[in-house]
Amino acid sequence: MTDANTADTGMPSQEKPKPNLARGLRTHYCGELTEAEVGQHVSVCGWVDRRREHGEHLAFVDLRDHTGIIQCVVDERIDVRSEYISRITGVVRLRPEGTANENLKTGTLEIGDCDVEILNRAEPPPFSLHDESIGGQQRTSTDETTRLRYRYIDLRRQRMQHNLRTRAKVNSCFRTSMERLGFLEVETPMLIASTPEGARDFVVPSRLHPNSFYALPQSPQIFKQLSMVGGVDRYYQIARCLRDEDLRADRQFEFMQLDLEASFVTHMEIMDFVNEAVLDATQAIMGWRPDAIPSISWHDAQDRFGTDKPDMRFGLELQELTSIFAETQARVFQAECIKGFALPGGSSLSRNRIDELTEKTKSWGAKGLAWFRVGEELSLDGALTRFMSQQEQAAITAALGASKGDLLLLIADKRAVANQVLGRLRLEVGEPDEKASRLKFVWVVDFPLFEGFSDDGAPIPAHHPFTMPHPEDLSILETFADGEASKLLGVRSLAYDLVLNGWELGSGSVRISTPELQRLVFSLLGMTDNEVEERFGFMVNAFKYGTPPHAGFALGIDRFVSILLEEETIREVIAFPKTQSGSDPLTGAPTSISPQHLRELGIRPSKPS
Amino acid sequence: MTDANTADTGMPSQEKPKPNLARGLRTHYCGELTEAEVGQHVSVCGWVDRRREHGEHLAFVDLRDHTGIIQCVVDERIDVRSEYISRITGVVRLRPEGTANENLKTGTLEIGDCDVEILNRAEPPPFSLHDESIGGQQRTSTDETTRLRYRYIDLRRQRMQHNLRTRAKVNSCFRTSMERLGFLEVETPMLIASTPEGARDFVVPSRLHPNSFYALPQSPQIFKQLSMVGGVDRYYQIARCLRDEDLRADRQFEFMQLDLEASFVTHMEIMDFVNEAVLDATQAIMGWRPDAIPSISWHDAQDRFGTDKPDMRFGLELQELTSIFAETQARVFQAECIKGFALPGGSSLSRNRIDELTEKTKSWGAKGLAWFRVGEELSLDGALTRFMSQQEQAAITAALGASKGDLLLLIADKRAVANQVLGRLRLEVGEPDEKASRLKFVWVVDFPLFEGFSDDGAPIPAHHPFTMPHPEDLSILETFADGEASKLLGVRSLAYDLVLNGWELGSGSVRISTPELQRLVFSLLGMTDNEVEERFGFMVNAFKYGTPPHAGFALGIDRFVSILLEEETIREVIAFPKTQSGSDPLTGAPTSISPQHLRELGIRPSKPS
Repeated sequence: MTDANTADTGMPSQEKPKPNLARGLRTHYCGELTEAEVGQHVSVCGWVDRRREHGEHLAFVDLRDHTGIIQCVVDERIDVRSEYISRITGVVRLRPEGTANENLKTGTLEIGDCDVEILNRAEPPPFSLHDESIGGQQRTSTDETTRLRYRYIDLRRQRMQHNLRTRAKVNSCFRTSMERLGFLEVETPMLIASTPEGARDFVVPSRLHPNSFYALPQSPQIFKQLSMVGGVDRYYQIARCLRDEDLRADRQFEFMQLDLEASFVTHMEIMDFVNEAVLDATQAIMGWRPDAIPSISWHDAQDRFGTDKPDMRFGLELQELTSIFAETQARVFQAECIKGFALPGGSSLSRNRIDELTEKTKSWGAKGLAWFRVGEELSLDGALTRFMSQQEQAAITAALGASKGDLLLLIADKRAVANQVLGRLRLEVGEPDEKASRLKFVWVVDFPLFEGFSDDGAPIPAHHPFTMPHPEDLSILETFADGEASKLLGVRSLAYDLVLNGWELGSGSVRISTPELQRLVFSLLGMTDNEVEERFGFMVNAFKYGTPPHAGFALGIDRFVSILLEEETIREVIAFPKTQSGSDPLTGAPTSISPQHLRELGIRPSKPS
Repeated sequence: MTDANTADTGMPSQEKPKPNLARGLRTHYCGELTEAEVGQHVSVCGWVDRRREHGEHLAFVDLRDHTGIIQCVVDERIDVRSEYISRITGVVRLRPEGTANENLKTGTLEIGDCDVEILNRAEPPPFSLHDESIGGQQRTSTDETTRLRYRYIDLRRQRMQHNLRTRAKVNSCFRTSMERLGFLEVETPMLIASTPEGARDFVVPSRLHPNSFYALPQSPQIFKQLSMVGGVDRYYQIARCLRDEDLRADRQFEFMQLDLEASFVTHMEIMDFVNEAVLDATQAIMGWRPDAIPSISWHDAQDRFGTDKPDMRFGLELQELTSIFAETQARVFQAECIKGFALPGGSSLSRNRIDELTEKTKSWGAKGLAWFRVGEELSLDGALTRFMSQQEQAAITAALGASKGDLLLLIADKRAVANQVLGRLRLEVGEPDEKASRLKFVWVVDFPLFEGFSDDGAPIPAHHPFTMPHPEDLSILETFADGEASKLLGVRSLAYDLVLNGWELGSGSVRISTPELQRLVFSLLGMTDNEVEERFGFMVNAFKYGTPPHAGFALGIDRFVSILLEEETIREVIAFPKTQSGSDPLTGAPTSISPQHLRELGIRPSKPS
């Protein structure tokens, strides 16, 4: 956009001038008028944002489209109201001195001598389209169900327009990056075979095949791997995925992912591809490029941050304190593991707040929270000090790097519990470092291959059974014998997650491509040949006919965009989302269908209406 | 790609040199090696295409990836077979003089001193991956079910790789055009409310809402219009659409469309937008830009070509002959309408062929086919001449512009029958003009608003009930009174189709945006307020709150790509299509689902298994 100064001096603007795309009933978009258009006869179209009377024969009509607002001066009495659809024709002119509106892109301009054509009337909108400043951002305070019921009005809000346009830009950037990297867009089917793995499938009754169902894809996983067998080499898709899971937390039944897979590459190249796509998109949206994305092993992430999705915007790393208490007399510290961190300035936390934190740690599974205020000369103040030696007190203060005024927070428990609880406590009390980047990406690599054992003693794959074991741990699998089950939990895989600000953005892995290794993993999982055939038969069969080594990744677009936009829920970046109960207040979905339709599908309800 | 000459001379190539995207296990792609790489140590990865022994210690291995094939000379005895996955490392060199293969991009090159690493073995493929020349094109003769069962092998064929890559390029071009034109990509939901309109919906049982179902979208129609009400201004999406219709003809349950909608524009701008997208994509694929796309009214299309989707690659336009037979003695010509065309050189058609054509016209609904061979001095020869006057014979010969050797083909019947049958006959005997462009686009505009009457006498909308009537015909609607039903069939609408080579590529219309006109159309359709509320309630409600004038279009991508590629079926341009019975021989979809899953969904089969 040409700004006022450069237009006046005729100097080229830094930004490329926006081409005028207006056609049809309009010559210009409201928000794109500049001082270069002063004197021009123009037509603008849009919604009446506000109308102000000035005496009997003068009115100011603010006309709005998605680009912004322009003030129109109307010299006749016309009946236009808020949200009326109007076409206004007149001459662009500078506003009288002293009347410019600095909050408006077009604030120095108005259209005069206006001819107003009302193209459509409108009932008064059920809520205001003008956002308020909430938490430092322009937001609406209208309740969400009302917004969703009238989404076609809600979408006119400036913030929603910005969100939708940002989302489209992210998609566009992703596609540009993927195409530049030689990835081929392949559209995989929506009506697929139901699989017993993963979350619950949405299913679609087949009319032509009685008692049979298609499933909607939870991801294009199967087809992207088959496309590697099919020589596609590098596949990508911005893919619609669906899971019939309860909508606790911030989830939707359907979500979009940037899905990719490549052959003859390692996890290093996959991470490079994703880095490029994600950093390109971030730069396009934010105007700056984040630093190169660091990696941390799953084990280190657990150790240092107590989670597999660390928020790297602040420190508060967990410190190992176990050895300090090796000889302790304090019963609470006679535990497998003692860890903790120092919260700078945390001494000022009220006793109430500390009790609240203690309750939280208990609800997360800890026996309790040990805490100490750091006072003068690094003396500790807390209920447990009387059971502790001076050496112990001095050692934890040193190990946690504490200063006067800090609050020391310790958990003594099994290692997994201590990590998990401290990880959550860290998020509860931590604040993003103001000097740090607002966006902190991190790769978490070398996830465990197995996440535990099922009731029958078989290990449970942490991802899916096609995930490649870490080459350095292959020998554990190959020499594994009954009775050494716990060894399996230490086996790493070539699986990796991309984490942003503590959210898991996406996940990927190298896949097993040779039948020998696949057979070994299936057998460790306790699967018989029959079970393998039934559950993965066509995949295993496909892999016999020439399967290249391949690896892939999938990134959740809804979450990524909502973090870029600092939105609290992904529903703010989805044009037509469902409520938390999975319904759509606008269209009424889901609905009943006709008895005839049910008959054609060969199904009937098993519950009374 | 740098070709050999420019690489030798160091001159810049006409084409931009392709960046080397190879990473990971390979340094280069097989088909992208050029003489510029001679002397370089390279690694290539892929499938063993062929292997030829030359004595005991020398073998030629053709390695294939999606870019092409490179010959590798192996000096040791290795057990590689067809489709084995290999990484071959060696030095690029020129083939010995006289051994170049002109059919191969890399035909002057080979990799010597090869080190072969087998990354994965492969069972022999169930069919050959080398296409044959069929109908002037490289195609496979393998039966389609086998190809679909082993789609992951079939996709390795050069033609399938080309098809998939062309399809992706079309998508990419469409997106580029739409974004340049200021269209915003909006992703509309897959789980929507079932509507009683159009074809049969696929439905998805809701687990959380017993006895309720989501529908899968037949198109994003509702949401794209709502997004116009929401101020999106210009919407587009490459949208997945699903219809539970029988798969006669060349259809799939799911299909992709370029879907768009714009506000404050007329049908002229919509057609301009589509022209730009379609011609851009065609140019990108074909290397040349088709002519500007002409328009023809629906009425003229029927009149001249007997169809609403005329194939403009050849003439054979239907001529009006009715007045010539005004006084005829020939009973067969005493009909409402007589039309016909002259088939150049058609006199040479055998009597058998002509009888076959006659039978076809009868199966299409005509009483019979009148035909005449044009002989010396334009004399007519045919069974009906004895009932016709000399004037009649001379007049039809003149009206049809016939020459010696032509065959005159006439139908006498009701006008609609004559048009329809001659339209099909024209396609049956016509051949694309060799001098004409292979791709002939045409817009068919001003479709009728109504396509007939239902049993209860109400007119049936030709498109959907939101289609805008033609402004010149509005007065017919406004002054319509009972008993004048037939007048309604003459009412035109602002609906338009884009036709390519006789196929309907896409369809669109201006939508009704004002409540007054919408009410009028609903009332003409015989709908009560209750029915309107039940069927279109939320749309009608939305339109009350400030709806801009808007119009849109949707273009079928599968068909478009298959015509560009001269493929007979759309399945050739879909990575993982279903068979004609709607099943997938690869994954077995659709399948049964578990009794537990059925219970959770609250449905049970009503037919025995």
